[in-house]
Amino acid sequence: MISKNQLKLIHALEQKKQRKKNGLFLVQGEKNVGELFNSDFTVKQLFATSSYINKNSRALNEFGLVSLTIEATEDELKKAGTLISNNSVLAVVECKIMPLPQIQKDELILVLDQVGDPGNLGTIIRVADWYGIKHIICSPDCADFYNPKVIAASMGSFARVQVSHTDLSEYLSQQSMAIYGAFLEGENIHKANLNKSAFIVMGSESHGISPEIEKFISHKMTIPSFGGAESLNVAMATGIIVDNFKR
Amino acid sequence: MISKNQLKLIHALEQKKQRKKNGLFLVQGEKNVGELFNSDFTVKQLFATSSYINKNSRALNEFGLVSLTIEATEDELKKAGTLISNNSVLAVVECKIMPLPQIQKDELILVLDQVGDPGNLGTIIRVADWYGIKHIICSPDCADFYNPKVIAASMGSFARVQVSHTDLSEYLSQQSMAIYGAFLEGENIHKANLNKSAFIVMGSESHGISPEIEKFISHKMTIPSFGGAESLNVAMATGIIVDNFKR
Repeated sequence: MISKNQLKLIHALEQKKQRKKNGLFLVQGEKNVGELFNSDFTVKQLFATSSYINKNSRALNEFGLVSLTIEATEDELKKAGTLISNNSVLAVVECKIMPLPQIQKDELILVLDQVGDPGNLGTIIRVADWYGIKHIICSPDCADFYNPKVIAASMGSFARVQVSHTDLSEYLSQQSMAIYGAFLEGENIHKANLNKSAFIVMGSESHGISPEIEKFISHKMTIPSFGGAESLNVAMATGIIVDNFKR
Repeated sequence: MISKNQLKLIHALEQKKQRKKNGLFLVQGEKNVGELFNSDFTVKQLFATSSYINKNSRALNEFGLVSLTIEATEDELKKAGTLISNNSVLAVVECKIMPLPQIQKDELILVLDQVGDPGNLGTIIRVADWYGIKHIICSPDCADFYNPKVIAASMGSFARVQVSHTDLSEYLSQQSMAIYGAFLEGENIHKANLNKSAFIVMGSESHGISPEIEKFISHKMTIPSFGGAESLNVAMATGIIVDNFKR
């Protein structure tokens, strides 16, 4: 059973302020919680249905989670969590500090300027993980990595991709690696020479890359358009651009 | 002012059954309604704020919509529509019959097998429009083209892309053009020979392409993975695959 105080904490963690204050966040659903087990995140508490506990007893044992697991009904979990379906398990997890990356050879790093929609950030984390990108650097006004919608949309990839928030102007001014940026009037990405080591900067859906960040871009690039749409969703554009870099 | 009966009709059009019965659907928000004006859709009624009407008086005149326009407050429009923001205008529009395409030379046609999520269908319509794809053929259990979430996610592209629903087995069995399909274990799309004329079949996110449709696929292809994510969102995968075809 989920106690009143536990329920209060879980609901509080829907808010960024409370996540920061408590140093905790929520991971919900079988797929996303399963990814936690093999990650370096620390689970503080697990609320799960009896059928989830039975099915995952080996993993719960192996990862020392048995004593942290509280049995709850699917109905209780539905009321506690933010998901419409997939309510067999909910984890309360410690936030971790995500330092700025030590850049490796042949590394692509995504840089997000004001990508505020949590669904978009989660989808970008997922596609980054697909292409083996390990680091995403966000402006402070991007969606919060620990937002439940980000975690849900990442489909487990939140456990493998480091997402840091920092002042982008300050950060980019100190870098020597090529800095590519997506614009509506850049070089055709199908024909551009794309470095193996690069920052790839994506701007907000409504305003694109902001002028303060634009001045750090060494290569402006564009996904060529063949039809009538004015723009692409920022997560979609990120996936297409990264695919071009990884060819 | 929106009358009680008008409000009842608008709310009814959120349901597929009622859209079918009335032969009408909703288009909401400035961007999507603006795309209607230049399309072959027939607007039956327009509800708009006075500021929208003032701003668009020329277009409303030009397209003969003045007599069909009813002034409403933003609050009324918010209560009538399904959007959280962007509530300056709402159109009631006639559904049109979308026949199966007459295939042109060098044409790419998207085929969607059980893509049930309306947000995904709308995003696919938008990326299809970006790449100049004119036709999408859906299995009957795909999301309804006229679902307000499809229209919203298409960001205006619903007005330029024809979306037909039909029995895919029957349809594909009659085609002679190459039929590509996205699978997790197909040929690497970065290395595959991609025809200029082709059907591109995408399956549902949870089950992929169904066995009945798989037998019509002449070329199985895969987006190569470099990291830990198990899959990509179907709209994302569609965009990346189409980008590879259009190189």
